[in-house]
Amino acid sequence: MQKISPIQIEWRPEKNGHTPVYKQIVQFVCDKVAAGEWTVGTKLPSQRALAELFEVNRITITTAIDELTSYGIVSGRHGAGTQISSNTWSLFLPKSNWNEYLKSGSFQENNVMIQAINRLEFEPSVIRIGTGEIDPRLFSQSMWSKTLQKVGSKLTSLGYLENLGLLELRQAIAKHLEDSGIRADPENILITSGSLQALQLIAVCLLQKGSTVFTEAPSYLKSLQMFQSAGMNLKGIPMDENGIEYWKLSSGETVDSSVLYTIPTNQNPTGTTMSENRRQELMKYCIDNQLPIIEDGAYQELSYNGVISKTLKSMDENGMVIYLGTASKTLAPGLRIGWVVASKPIVERLGDVKMQMDYGASSLSQWALTEFLNSGAYDEYLSDLKIELKNRRDNALKSLGKYFKNLASWNKPDGGFYIWLTFKNNIKIEQLFEAAIKEKILLNPGDIYDFKEDHSLRLSFAYVNSDEFNRAIRELSEIIKELN
Amino acid sequence: MQKISPIQIEWRPEKNGHTPVYKQIVQFVCDKVAAGEWTVGTKLPSQRALAELFEVNRITITTAIDELTSYGIVSGRHGAGTQISSNTWSLFLPKSNWNEYLKSGSFQENNVMIQAINRLEFEPSVIRIGTGEIDPRLFSQSMWSKTLQKVGSKLTSLGYLENLGLLELRQAIAKHLEDSGIRADPENILITSGSLQALQLIAVCLLQKGSTVFTEAPSYLKSLQMFQSAGMNLKGIPMDENGIEYWKLSSGETVDSSVLYTIPTNQNPTGTTMSENRRQELMKYCIDNQLPIIEDGAYQELSYNGVISKTLKSMDENGMVIYLGTASKTLAPGLRIGWVVASKPIVERLGDVKMQMDYGASSLSQWALTEFLNSGAYDEYLSDLKIELKNRRDNALKSLGKYFKNLASWNKPDGGFYIWLTFKNNIKIEQLFEAAIKEKILLNPGDIYDFKEDHSLRLSFAYVNSDEFNRAIRELSEIIKELN
Repeated sequence: MQKISPIQIEWRPEKNGHTPVYKQIVQFVCDKVAAGEWTVGTKLPSQRALAELFEVNRITITTAIDELTSYGIVSGRHGAGTQISSNTWSLFLPKSNWNEYLKSGSFQENNVMIQAINRLEFEPSVIRIGTGEIDPRLFSQSMWSKTLQKVGSKLTSLGYLENLGLLELRQAIAKHLEDSGIRADPENILITSGSLQALQLIAVCLLQKGSTVFTEAPSYLKSLQMFQSAGMNLKGIPMDENGIEYWKLSSGETVDSSVLYTIPTNQNPTGTTMSENRRQELMKYCIDNQLPIIEDGAYQELSYNGVISKTLKSMDENGMVIYLGTASKTLAPGLRIGWVVASKPIVERLGDVKMQMDYGASSLSQWALTEFLNSGAYDEYLSDLKIELKNRRDNALKSLGKYFKNLASWNKPDGGFYIWLTFKNNIKIEQLFEAAIKEKILLNPGDIYDFKEDHSLRLSFAYVNSDEFNRAIRELSEIIKELN
Repeated sequence: MQKISPIQIEWRPEKNGHTPVYKQIVQFVCDKVAAGEWTVGTKLPSQRALAELFEVNRITITTAIDELTSYGIVSGRHGAGTQISSNTWSLFLPKSNWNEYLKSGSFQENNVMIQAINRLEFEPSVIRIGTGEIDPRLFSQSMWSKTLQKVGSKLTSLGYLENLGLLELRQAIAKHLEDSGIRADPENILITSGSLQALQLIAVCLLQKGSTVFTEAPSYLKSLQMFQSAGMNLKGIPMDENGIEYWKLSSGETVDSSVLYTIPTNQNPTGTTMSENRRQELMKYCIDNQLPIIEDGAYQELSYNGVISKTLKSMDENGMVIYLGTASKTLAPGLRIGWVVASKPIVERLGDVKMQMDYGASSLSQWALTEFLNSGAYDEYLSDLKIELKNRRDNALKSLGKYFKNLASWNKPDGGFYIWLTFKNNIKIEQLFEAAIKEKILLNPGDIYDFKEDHSLRLSFAYVNSDEFNRAIRELSEIIKELN
């Protein structure tokens, strides 16, 4: 074995500098490695020795070493034996802007919470009563098998597609949109790799740094980093039971380049459906104030009460509204297919940029969705799904009435996945989240979606069946009693 | 019908201003519309009247109106009758950074050429002898039908997947990579929505504005806007028949945060395969100079001569190489599946960012590719494909020998799709491109891929069959004689 002589360190961090001390240490190690002075296998002094040498406390050293470890630059955690383990790509990680963004974002706490949720979602024993996804057990194996067999028998190639996406799918979607009162030609439709990508395209192609995006408070949009990371300001506008209180958005506020993002039907996370009156008033307000609208129709097709809400897009006469649709909340998130409906210059621009991002969404997914829509299987499946979701909602409301009557208030959604529950006393949601995890219950705290600290939960009856929901709600009520 | 009184314009463009006059006019119209002074339906004065009013020539007005039309802000081209047609989202288009980028890019000429190619590729009567895509007629309907049927019978859900992509697919790829001498665990592999997205992730997560990306000259990378639009510098390094002449990349040049992008096997666009000696020398050079490598293995599996080239990744002992693979050049571009092989901290970072971009690649595509790999169908298909491509290459070389002997020189590729042809006299490629289009032949000029004007073509025998190739080459030789 090669003998490596102990390294000598003359450098000391600057205690009162602009950069945190642990960051300086990370940078120092990176520089040494980048300069080739410390090669792979070089052993660092022990953490205790480093702390003495740099005249800092142990926690500073641990933080620096943890960060270097996460980049893969050193290996061998805690205690003796930390050594240099990479001198190439890993050195790029501490420098990337993305990293800066992640570390300095003002929404770090939410990030940590969301990260925890993302991680726990892959633990099979956890009951998820906040997840915005259809229960995988509702996956219709026979329908998919039949559909894929048909796709397989029809496919004659699987090459790159036109900028806007598969024409056959755009035709099928145009036809399908008629149910929501939207008249669109295939040339007004762009297929995206899910709705998330549609939002990204809008951020890159239409908005600018400093643009203001107004949205319901709370809103799904708040849980996404995307607009914020692109330098846009998100502003939450309160809601009542009829939807967004647009009049609180005083016209002085609607600045140049500002837009409105709304989920009018079965909103995420509150389950609220905007009334038809409110929709008409909102449209008038937006036209008068030249405030363009992004209408997210993710839950548009999931109303159980037989009423089809009038989309804002269906009232749109001059290209005021960009409508977003998706197959993720009805059919399957794994298809990764969404669509944008807008005027031709807009979809063409978004389409051009999309081509430079990923050359289009999966053609296989596009053919599969085309087959679902054209064969009628989609409509048939959707009507079954709505019956199931309605049953689950009824059960969920009953369960809440039984266990939470004195603890919280909540709404009765007409469709979608969600119930918004607000506690009557100021319960510490973070504490509840932690305590619930111990009982294997995963919650989606309202804070993730809200613009201020709240005392709410987004409950979803889509992912778990009624027995599971009831069990989780009963246990949760007990946890709360213990916490009080 | 509502009578609209003629609009009064007091404003005049600034003739010696920093902003081009036509741009000022575009901005003026946008401002009037944004301010609500000119509503939808407002008729603009005739172009002649506008030219007189603004004291500019007609072409300036036409340019401004054309741009406003492309944004959808006015409609009714040329002559009388131009009117305001939108006052909302369209107004965002002229302002977006993306637009600035498109208009101001230093590669605008290539852009125009690439745009023309993209457009003409959807004209069915055109013969495409430069297209980097497998002939759709080689699509194996029976294999796909069988595979999709199997996928359909096995699928039990189609939800969101882990950050790195479907575990079963990453396992299958890990196994498959052994053929290229690469040992990778599933946790070293990230599934992307095609290789293009992998490059985008690297640009966003690892590189910085001002980073230098070295690559072969010519290179496929030059045809992409991505790195340039992210503010990176692309630098071309000459090649000989053994690959990139790395010694021309003097160590003084390898600056901080610079990387090397290379396609060592069956390079795009030259068809060159780097010799094993050159690979070893290059690896040594990169280690000595701490120059990390992006190895694009898109054509790695397409060598016909029975020799499997040693990947750089297989020689990589310390995470120096990020390897990119894809199903687009072998199986089907429409799957939109690629993969990144790198050290764990790197794939994890890229995976985190990918989740914020599109929540992962199509699960359906991922399951389909898993089935192809695990069932052995992929290997079987690949061996047939290589036989077909080899026959086409042999024919192409014969055809070139017959018609281009005195006109040009070219190489003999050992695999992949491409032959790089260079004319002996300084033929104007743009003129040739135009003349060929008239004869319904679509060319891929070398300029698209090169760092300086050249007199070359990228020929591809992958997309057209031998008869079509021969016919196009014969006609092309006649066109050249006429041009001389």
